Amino acid sequence: MSTCFFCSNLGGEVLYRNNLFRIIAIDEPNYPGYLRIVLNEHTKELSDLTDQDNISIYLAVIKCEKIIRKLFSPEKINLASFGNMTPHVHWHIIPRFIGDLHFPNPTWGEVTNPQYIPSKVVIEAHQTMLNQFNQLFLALA
Amino acid sequence: MSTCFFCSNLGGEVLYRNNLFRIIAIDEPNYPGYLRIVLNEHTKELSDLTDQDNISIYLAVIKCEKIIRKLFSPEKINLASFGNMTPHVHWHIIPRFIGDLHFPNPTWGEVTNPQYIPSKVVIEAHQTMLNQFNQLFLALA
Repeated sequence: MSTCFFCSNLGGEVLYRNNLFRIIAIDEPNYPGYLRIVLNEHTKELSDLTDQDNISIYLAVIKCEKIIRKLFSPEKINLASFGNMTPHVHWHIIPRFIGDLHFPNPTWGEVTNPQYIPSKVVIEAHQTMLNQFNQLFLALA
Repeated sequence: MSTCFFCSNLGGEVLYRNNLFRIIAIDEPNYPGYLRIVLNEHTKELSDLTDQDNISIYLAVIKCEKIIRKLFSPEKINLASFGNMTPHVHWHIIPRFIGDLHFPNPTWGEVTNPQYIPSKVVIEAHQTMLNQFNQLFLALA
């Protein structure tokens, strides 16, 4: 387990944490608003979790999606759980904008807009997210 | 709506269908076992769904993951919901193998193993999945 990145690192700035998972703000200049939810325990696949834990983490993904939509008004939300290189359950939640670095490809795909720079509005929304995430998350049913 | 691919096409061979979604076998020769769950109604984001519908479709994703793991014993399961080009809720569920076409990248990433050919065992598992999916799905709690 000591070789697992998410077992030995929080993975970024923790915006919220409970007994099951933590929510991390990803410092990726091209993608303000990028969040990652990381399971605290080392578990490889989502289907290794109980349905109850699985639903808890999934509803947290959806709450993150709602917060991102509220703050960033993105063109689309992208969700993914891969773990080929770090097989420790985690979710990527990424706001996407027309004309962003890879749009309409997934962020793991080919760059389509190499000149892209996130707008000031988006960068400000990211700062708002860092400041207000916890209260916005807890306010969601 | 008529311009939405998933509103005008089932999207492949339907292995299971209910009032909320359909489960499709993807005919992608490099990725036997690739499943897609498509919402029947046109909805852009998962967070537009009720929690109840959202959990129903998510638990179906997890059931697909369990069936794929049982039949294919993959190295890893990859899940994703993007919709940048087709903004109609759908999930990708993809079994991944060490040495497959893009491993360890996501299947939307760079090709790493251009010579990859799925094994006979994997191709047979795909046929088993086509034949038995419905009963395996219904057998899961």
